[in-house]
Amino acid sequence: MKAYTEMSRTELEASHSRLISEYEALKAKGLKLDMSRGKPGLDQLDLSMDMMSVLDSSSSLKSEEGIDCRNYGELTGIGEAKRLLAEMMEVEPDEIIIYGNSSLNVMFDTVARSYIHGVMGNTPWCRLDKVKFLCPVPGYDRHFAITEAFGIEMINIPMTASGPDMDMVEKYVNSDPAVKGIWCVPKYSNPQGITYSDETVLRFAALKPAAPDFRIYWDNAYCVHHLYEDDQDVLVEILDACKKAGNPDMVYKFSSTSKISFPGSGIAAIAASKANIKEIAALLSVQTIGHDKLNQLRHVRFFKNLDGIRAHMMKHAELIRPKFKIVLDTLESGLGGLGIGSWYNPKGGYFVSFDSMDGCAKKIVRLAAEAGVKMTGAGATYPYGKDPRDSNIRIAPTYPSTEELAEAMKVFVVCVKLASVEKLLEK
Amino acid sequence: MKAYTEMSRTELEASHSRLISEYEALKAKGLKLDMSRGKPGLDQLDLSMDMMSVLDSSSSLKSEEGIDCRNYGELTGIGEAKRLLAEMMEVEPDEIIIYGNSSLNVMFDTVARSYIHGVMGNTPWCRLDKVKFLCPVPGYDRHFAITEAFGIEMINIPMTASGPDMDMVEKYVNSDPAVKGIWCVPKYSNPQGITYSDETVLRFAALKPAAPDFRIYWDNAYCVHHLYEDDQDVLVEILDACKKAGNPDMVYKFSSTSKISFPGSGIAAIAASKANIKEIAALLSVQTIGHDKLNQLRHVRFFKNLDGIRAHMMKHAELIRPKFKIVLDTLESGLGGLGIGSWYNPKGGYFVSFDSMDGCAKKIVRLAAEAGVKMTGAGATYPYGKDPRDSNIRIAPTYPSTEELAEAMKVFVVCVKLASVEKLLEK
Repeated sequence: MKAYTEMSRTELEASHSRLISEYEALKAKGLKLDMSRGKPGLDQLDLSMDMMSVLDSSSSLKSEEGIDCRNYGELTGIGEAKRLLAEMMEVEPDEIIIYGNSSLNVMFDTVARSYIHGVMGNTPWCRLDKVKFLCPVPGYDRHFAITEAFGIEMINIPMTASGPDMDMVEKYVNSDPAVKGIWCVPKYSNPQGITYSDETVLRFAALKPAAPDFRIYWDNAYCVHHLYEDDQDVLVEILDACKKAGNPDMVYKFSSTSKISFPGSGIAAIAASKANIKEIAALLSVQTIGHDKLNQLRHVRFFKNLDGIRAHMMKHAELIRPKFKIVLDTLESGLGGLGIGSWYNPKGGYFVSFDSMDGCAKKIVRLAAEAGVKMTGAGATYPYGKDPRDSNIRIAPTYPSTEELAEAMKVFVVCVKLASVEKLLEK
Repeated sequence: MKAYTEMSRTELEASHSRLISEYEALKAKGLKLDMSRGKPGLDQLDLSMDMMSVLDSSSSLKSEEGIDCRNYGELTGIGEAKRLLAEMMEVEPDEIIIYGNSSLNVMFDTVARSYIHGVMGNTPWCRLDKVKFLCPVPGYDRHFAITEAFGIEMINIPMTASGPDMDMVEKYVNSDPAVKGIWCVPKYSNPQGITYSDETVLRFAALKPAAPDFRIYWDNAYCVHHLYEDDQDVLVEILDACKKAGNPDMVYKFSSTSKISFPGSGIAAIAASKANIKEIAALLSVQTIGHDKLNQLRHVRFFKNLDGIRAHMMKHAELIRPKFKIVLDTLESGLGGLGIGSWYNPKGGYFVSFDSMDGCAKKIVRLAAEAGVKMTGAGATYPYGKDPRDSNIRIAPTYPSTEELAEAMKVFVVCVKLASVEKLLEK
């Protein structure tokens, strides 16, 4: 197939007419499809239904240590829940605090705590004129929403195939004391599905921050979210790397079981050095008496250990692999060789990231919406919703059925072509 | 029995010798008893065991409105959970947001939101030189810990038998724009068990705050926590009273099912005017994707409606009424007429509040601890842990067994007598 970028004006105009007809025909179908959010499909939720029966009215609701999980107490979580999530997050059980159902909430609280109280004796951020965060882009919109809500200035750091541009990260972190953090989704990143290379992680661990209260916000949301049994990315464990590099307190790790068990009813955790954990727990004691220990118990009794989680995640993979295949096959067959878009082929995570020609993403998303296909808003993957090139679109394949997804991707491909041809005709 | 305050020095010295022997004998028993926290007893927890079976692997986990409670979404809670807690909190379902397991966490978040973002367009508290809260005393230590953590100046307001001293409340709130809030436990107050009178509530509703962002923090933690079926306090509903007085936005109401179902695994809520709820929900959307909807569903399917909650609370009452009776009877038989202490006789809630002679509370608590009986720390019921008269001690009868409680109260009475006699001998 001839690349659009090499077509003559006449050829582009002919393509345009054909695409308009195709688009109008799709529009006439009155579709109502949603590829906007990284929500598990109903079949994935069904995988965890047995968790609902793992505790019942005749169960012992005591933890291994004899704690009655029904009553108040155990601020940092019950022992077996710490062990389970510590195993998953590759840290020690005394380097972790178990929270409620939302790791996003843990991240919000972590920023809020730094803003209100400061980090390890440093000035609370609310008393500073300027606080900055580095934001690898494209990235996760809800991360950016948190820093924006605190008036924190966000600086775009381009992603490469091996992670954030580390030259830029080092330049900012090592020289600017206003840079207090960086948002990272280091494995199967949102939205590209990139896993940071060993070199990237080791360069992170070896940072020499100008700010003593600089922290890496390491949101390992997709740590066990592989698509394949035999082809999995491996991420260097950063807390250990930081310790070895002499920066033991420089990282906060976040994770949850949200896309392992139930998205609304999982358990979340923060992992960090013992010094960080001690500080966080002390302030947490003002904030709550404790999180839901029965749900912690439910998770441990259901999954038992990391092997249990891994086996469970392979069931998820079997359900979502065909969906990723539909997305990638449709992109390849519909857009391959046309020179109007590129995408990553992830080995895990929840998204496919598509880059259109510059200046086309908003139009593509609008065209898709008008044809009944809801995508994540263009720009959402950038701080302040501003994609400087207007090119990145996040595709979330998991929630629709395979039939809906195939239909939606057909619409998407036509919208990409149409917007691209119109862009080329503008020149 | 002759009042200690009317005894001669010789009589006091004779009493002192007897009390020392009694105390040493009790100490020799090597007791280990805990009356320090308002935790339900194990028999109370057992009342809710059927809740663990109300959802199982074959249950429909859809809400009445067809929401799949397993997935992301429904930031402010599912419809039926709003209806249930709205009924309990005497507001409309659109005047409520359902949170996670902890109303303390909701209160912390409410202060934090005001500190970080400000209330309805007013200056965020972190940008102000001085923020003050009124604290009816004695009160709840965890309230005071929240305001202390934000550097908020706390002002003691004495409690009377009909609620806080409203002359003082009106004076501060109506004249000082730095006064941004007041902590209230309006029904079966912690620790005295006092319910605010109709007049008190109406005077609250009619406040004319100097600060436009002044809010009443109405922690109705014990709204359905009666001790008797036929002798219950009734509290005027404050949101409605505020509306009628032209102050619709002036109150935040808090409650939870913590001491109704399971303390660690209940559901909590905030109720307020629609304008407040709208503002809170907008900021909450940055903070989390949503709370645990399966636990919301579990609560609704177990309790069904307010009548279900009321019936359940009567089962709690049957279990804890004898414990309150032990405390009150032991105080009466051991200390009645001695002129060295006073206490309230509550009709609900979780505590008995004891006032010793001035300057004796710390000593009583220390003596009790040395004899193996743990009480809430003296001073805990006051901001900064400072009881200016050193006289208030909170007694929490629910967690120990009746046998343990009887034993512990015997120790307590001897400690009160001993500390009082020693005080009188100092003169």
